[in-house]
Amino acid sequence: MVRADEGMGFVLRYENVAWYEDGKVKILDRRIYPIKVEYVVCTKHEEVAQAIADMVTQSGGPYTAAAMGMALAAYEAQELPDSEYRDYMEKAAYTLSHARPTTVEKMKRVVERALKRLDKEIEAGTSRRDMPEKLFEDAVDRSNENYWRYDKIAEHLADKIPTGGTILTQCFAETIIGTLLRECRKRGNEIKVVCAETRPYYQGARLTASVACDMGFDTTVITDNMPAFAIKEKKIDVFTSAADVITMDGYVVNKVGTFQIALGARYWGIPYFTTGTPNPAHPDIASVEIEYRDPELVTESMGQKHTLPGVKGWYPAFDITPPKLVDGIVTEKGILSPYNLKAYFE
Amino acid sequence: MVRADEGMGFVLRYENVAWYEDGKVKILDRRIYPIKVEYVVCTKHEEVAQAIADMVTQSGGPYTAAAMGMALAAYEAQELPDSEYRDYMEKAAYTLSHARPTTVEKMKRVVERALKRLDKEIEAGTSRRDMPEKLFEDAVDRSNENYWRYDKIAEHLADKIPTGGTILTQCFAETIIGTLLRECRKRGNEIKVVCAETRPYYQGARLTASVACDMGFDTTVITDNMPAFAIKEKKIDVFTSAADVITMDGYVVNKVGTFQIALGARYWGIPYFTTGTPNPAHPDIASVEIEYRDPELVTESMGQKHTLPGVKGWYPAFDITPPKLVDGIVTEKGILSPYNLKAYFE
Repeated sequence: MVRADEGMGFVLRYENVAWYEDGKVKILDRRIYPIKVEYVVCTKHEEVAQAIADMVTQSGGPYTAAAMGMALAAYEAQELPDSEYRDYMEKAAYTLSHARPTTVEKMKRVVERALKRLDKEIEAGTSRRDMPEKLFEDAVDRSNENYWRYDKIAEHLADKIPTGGTILTQCFAETIIGTLLRECRKRGNEIKVVCAETRPYYQGARLTASVACDMGFDTTVITDNMPAFAIKEKKIDVFTSAADVITMDGYVVNKVGTFQIALGARYWGIPYFTTGTPNPAHPDIASVEIEYRDPELVTESMGQKHTLPGVKGWYPAFDITPPKLVDGIVTEKGILSPYNLKAYFE
Repeated sequence: MVRADEGMGFVLRYENVAWYEDGKVKILDRRIYPIKVEYVVCTKHEEVAQAIADMVTQSGGPYTAAAMGMALAAYEAQELPDSEYRDYMEKAAYTLSHARPTTVEKMKRVVERALKRLDKEIEAGTSRRDMPEKLFEDAVDRSNENYWRYDKIAEHLADKIPTGGTILTQCFAETIIGTLLRECRKRGNEIKVVCAETRPYYQGARLTASVACDMGFDTTVITDNMPAFAIKEKKIDVFTSAADVITMDGYVVNKVGTFQIALGARYWGIPYFTTGTPNPAHPDIASVEIEYRDPELVTESMGQKHTLPGVKGWYPAFDITPPKLVDGIVTEKGILSPYNLKAYFE
């Protein structure tokens, strides 16, 4: 099997993102990495959906987990009567794609791809016994396509980083972090990486910084109150993040904090580039439901409570950055204006 | 002894800020409150300076600790020959005021006050044995004066908060939090308080939120990546913070994070009010040295490491908010424009 994850650090290797094998999906528990290296092992597709909801994996991880979850569903469904088989798979697709509210539309594309492959295999007479392996292969193909696509995105983004420059990241931008650093190295540009830690889950400190450090780049973590000051003092050249949703009217929905870093970038006159793909299922920002998570997670850190009883928490998982603060949407087709995203589909 | 700290919550009561008694200065360890209630007990003034450097107490706490440290120095110096006595006290004043670089000028005012009282008592024939008590009384008087001054500041700030409104705080604004909430309650205005948690020490979550919650106000903690989004979503009316230094040219030096919250406030059109006093020892921002602290503190939380070995940290204790993002400096004399701070001294 061809793999596109060479040289991209431990957490980005396919088998550590989410991996189907012998009736199980194994997911690296990114909630605790790198403090501990543990995997959540799911024996039912509902457990995969729950793992996604529980943020065992984040950024691009949930999509790979959902694709692997479809292979697992096919394993579960082997003995079902003909009349129930496809229905079971469709229900699994629904369960997996609806694990988190903000990303349902993006998730649908993943599970619909699996259903399409399923139908193709049924038509070709593939046995139910062989189906999990076929959907697993499709999930790996999907990851490969994604990584190849991000190689292209990385090329466009790398063009915008000066030699020996410094980038600032927010949360965990998954594939693009690995492909971007791989591309910079290929060009002989050993950039520096500054990662906002990204409370309350510390994806920046634990994941993005780990990928960059694994790959041998100069990597610095800052707390989430430092980005605007760091842009000036650490001479940041580019702020970049991925997006959970890019709406057709140019809004970027991404891990909470992105918006205020974009404000800092604008203040100091450095560009903010969002990597990803505009989503036609979201014609405008009004179509996006912001997910609110357990507020208790904000009144603790690393499992330790740090407030008095009676103090409340508030936890929007995402915030909204308006197009006027976004300098470009970096796609595999080039860097687009957030004001002209229909260009992506032309 | 008259006390001005009635009804202002556990951490603002004098004996929990810093307290001299029987040759010891006892300081509430705000690094761990409210998870644990513990005091650092210093038997030498150098230990008080070290406690200040180690951030056992923050915000207004170090100034009270320094004043109490002068009483402790007088206790230590009781048996010294005449020729060495005042010199010893001056050296103690230097040590205490230079515990942290950014606040030296403000600290000098505290220890110089103590030295002035010392000279007055020497002139009046006060015995060396009675001197610690005199300097302790002076330290309490100083706290009282401070609290009364902040009662005035609170009146001016309370004027700007709508009935049932919501304020957003950064770090721990010490006295003003208690006096402001006391003033709002006096007016029948039960405001809501949203506190940014303030990594890496969590002063917002552990101290500001504790004071507000102690006093029975609706209190919510958010992580440091949320303020700009919270201003809109939580309908914040006013952002307010104290300042470690307010320069005569209108720059606010305060806990890192203040600057980017001020950017968010400006974006959404809500005012940012800084409480405190402009400092003539800092004619301009160039005269301020920003303190950098141990970067390891950023690569851990609650004492638990959360990054791979090899990942660096970066920890500026403060950032700089320019006058154009500050809507007013709230002093006991009224709200001043950051562009006309000489008005304070007229």
